[in-house]
Amino acid sequence: MNDVVTDPITENDRSWEEVVRVANEGSVEELSELLDSMSVAEQAYVFSHMEDDAEAVVLRRLPAEDAADLIGHFNESEAARMIQLLESQAAATILQEMPIDEQADVIGDLPEKEAEAILQELPQQNADNVRELTAYPDNVAGGMMVVEMLRFRSEMTVAEVIDEINRGAEHYTDLDVRYAYVCDDEGRLVGVLPMQNLLFVKRYRKLGEIMIKDPLSVRTTAPLEELAEFFESHVYLGVPVVDDDGVLKGVLHREAVQYEEVRAAENDYLKSQGIVGGEELRTMPVWLRSRRRLSWLSINIFLNLGAAAVIAYFQETLESVIALAVFLPIISDMSGCSGNQAVAVSMRELSLGIIRPTEFFRVWWKEFTVGLINGSVLGGLIAVVAVLFDGNPYLGVVVGVALCLNTLIAVSIGGVVPLLLKRFGFDPAVASGPLLTTVTDMCGFFLVLGLATVMLSRLT
Amino acid sequence: MNDVVTDPITENDRSWEEVVRVANEGSVEELSELLDSMSVAEQAYVFSHMEDDAEAVVLRRLPAEDAADLIGHFNESEAARMIQLLESQAAATILQEMPIDEQADVIGDLPEKEAEAILQELPQQNADNVRELTAYPDNVAGGMMVVEMLRFRSEMTVAEVIDEINRGAEHYTDLDVRYAYVCDDEGRLVGVLPMQNLLFVKRYRKLGEIMIKDPLSVRTTAPLEELAEFFESHVYLGVPVVDDDGVLKGVLHREAVQYEEVRAAENDYLKSQGIVGGEELRTMPVWLRSRRRLSWLSINIFLNLGAAAVIAYFQETLESVIALAVFLPIISDMSGCSGNQAVAVSMRELSLGIIRPTEFFRVWWKEFTVGLINGSVLGGLIAVVAVLFDGNPYLGVVVGVALCLNTLIAVSIGGVVPLLLKRFGFDPAVASGPLLTTVTDMCGFFLVLGLATVMLSRLT
Repeated sequence: MNDVVTDPITENDRSWEEVVRVANEGSVEELSELLDSMSVAEQAYVFSHMEDDAEAVVLRRLPAEDAADLIGHFNESEAARMIQLLESQAAATILQEMPIDEQADVIGDLPEKEAEAILQELPQQNADNVRELTAYPDNVAGGMMVVEMLRFRSEMTVAEVIDEINRGAEHYTDLDVRYAYVCDDEGRLVGVLPMQNLLFVKRYRKLGEIMIKDPLSVRTTAPLEELAEFFESHVYLGVPVVDDDGVLKGVLHREAVQYEEVRAAENDYLKSQGIVGGEELRTMPVWLRSRRRLSWLSINIFLNLGAAAVIAYFQETLESVIALAVFLPIISDMSGCSGNQAVAVSMRELSLGIIRPTEFFRVWWKEFTVGLINGSVLGGLIAVVAVLFDGNPYLGVVVGVALCLNTLIAVSIGGVVPLLLKRFGFDPAVASGPLLTTVTDMCGFFLVLGLATVMLSRLT
Repeated sequence: MNDVVTDPITENDRSWEEVVRVANEGSVEELSELLDSMSVAEQAYVFSHMEDDAEAVVLRRLPAEDAADLIGHFNESEAARMIQLLESQAAATILQEMPIDEQADVIGDLPEKEAEAILQELPQQNADNVRELTAYPDNVAGGMMVVEMLRFRSEMTVAEVIDEINRGAEHYTDLDVRYAYVCDDEGRLVGVLPMQNLLFVKRYRKLGEIMIKDPLSVRTTAPLEELAEFFESHVYLGVPVVDDDGVLKGVLHREAVQYEEVRAAENDYLKSQGIVGGEELRTMPVWLRSRRRLSWLSINIFLNLGAAAVIAYFQETLESVIALAVFLPIISDMSGCSGNQAVAVSMRELSLGIIRPTEFFRVWWKEFTVGLINGSVLGGLIAVVAVLFDGNPYLGVVVGVALCLNTLIAVSIGGVVPLLLKRFGFDPAVASGPLLTTVTDMCGFFLVLGLATVMLSRLT
């Protein structure tokens, strides 16, 4: 089904010129109001279309809290790009208004030098917290958790807790206060306490007596797949995150895991298309975009030479039967298409957990049967085309048999390669495509030209 | 960064043989217990590895409620496959235990005949509700909403509402009861009522007086992008869904939108790899998988013939300078890689809403600058290779200039094509790739062979 074309912004367009004008001529209140009146999508659109200088003016003029809100709406790479427009002190002032985990997301996306400069400007405790968080990869619990939460020691009484909450009421309203977490003197998680329970118990009781003991938790190092599985199997909206010693480090919300799942799926798509050096947006500098894309392209051109070498090896055959040159790119492209389909299905089944990275034979057999049908159909089609084109039935046999066999090879490799890569710790989304293309091109060219060499007397 | 290899299942493996054994020899209780003890991932793995007959035995032996729970854990295509293993009456008995929206998801994934047979077996009201829901596409509010909710008329008093809730307590505990929705006599949404407010008001008051009036709502036809934007801009966990007349049709939860976002991103990846006829899992029958893949491949083979025709047109040039045949597949593949990178960035920017489908020129210019750098580098590289391979500097000039120019063409087309397709209501994830490949192949072959024809005297 085609996506419905919708552009809810168009009807109510506010051009970036208006934001620039108000930033330069209006009051701070007008600027805040104008930005507040925009949807998140409008803000993202406007800031991706403004000149860098104009963006910096807006960020500098806004109260730090409003600027933090604004930047918090954008995805991490866009937020990092905007923060880099400011001097490190101004950047630090804005970042301080964000929750620690969001600070870490943005700072983690900055080049090391810029990140360090901003960390220097942050208060020591804040900087240390950010440093601890940026050490975790984005796709493990430590990289997705929030670190601000209600955390109390088990000897505290209900009265003490209520007192503390009341004193910090302003701060706590920003947090997800469904649960409080109870720790021992070493900071180890020993219990959780649904907040509403505080209302139903005597005020002199200690948390250690009324908490739910031995609560479920996940490790800081738990990977996305395990966390997705956790939230699929449990109805909780959040789960405490602990380190190897059981010390409470943060809280992971269901929503953060879902957000990361969207990102992982989007990244798989980007990587399969050759965007592998990190997110690219056209607001980034040309040299950076060019360099990242080239790193991928240069590996591919090198791999392509391998396939070209096969053609070079059979140059004499090609010279005798020049019609073969017309069919080489078709064989290469069609095998690539068939193989990519098999790659995609393996990636899907791996992500659903319904195949394991060790089930080579099962996957190969399931691909072989489909490849046999599709190879025969495609081989038959191309054979007919070759005979119509050249008049020589043997040319049809050569290209038809070659495409049929190479389809079988392509789906076999395409199905199994993602499992192998995964099994040995590589990222199948990045590496499957080029590996597949190289091998199927080499095999395809070898099959066409090898068969032609054997049947050369019939072809000329 | 490489994905961490984790396979939480392996340590605690329960082979599908055990499930089959217990299904055949154990009691119903043992079977329920065994399945209950498995994580969702284990269940998915086990049922994708059992024989169809064995799966059917398990589903028939389980109490309908447990079978519904089990099937509810799987994704829609897998659930639909399992339901098809049963006679329509048994299938209907199980489906009835699911919420209406899940029933609709599964039935919507069945072939029309099977779907109709099951609908016949469902109670009339239930079947009508399912029919209404299956009419919505998956990616609009109507296709994602739940239809079971607390809904009261505005003339009702608080006492009547509390009474009704108490009578249906068992049913209501399954629902998300944070809000009740208030409708007029025609079913039009007129207010919402946070449930806890019922506790603080006099029991004789009418809902119309105490509800929040004119609540936010979304249309049944609102597309995914608009809904994602809604939940980005508002903190609510759910929003009422109304039809064009304002009649309350269901409630849309934030989680359902996020789930659909994951699915959309996964589908973009699958479609870009040529899985376009609907989800494919290797548990599906070979003929179905083969047919769906072939529909895509046969379009591609046809498009490939266009590019091959360009080579055929220049056959004489090729015959004179056979070394050109070695470089044709490289030009084709490298241009495809460069173009796909541009496609991916456009898809990403479209999904982030930071470009609009009308901004051809902006996107083209941003691509042109990168293409100029990358084309020069790649063209230079391939020129050096050609000279080393053949010894003739003019061959280097021909393939180098051709690859440079064709890289510019590829990134221009790759950047703009997704916008054009989107603008005119086509799905850019499906169609961008083949369109791009065909045009860049034709241009690439034309450039190499055309240049070679012009410089033929220098090349031979």
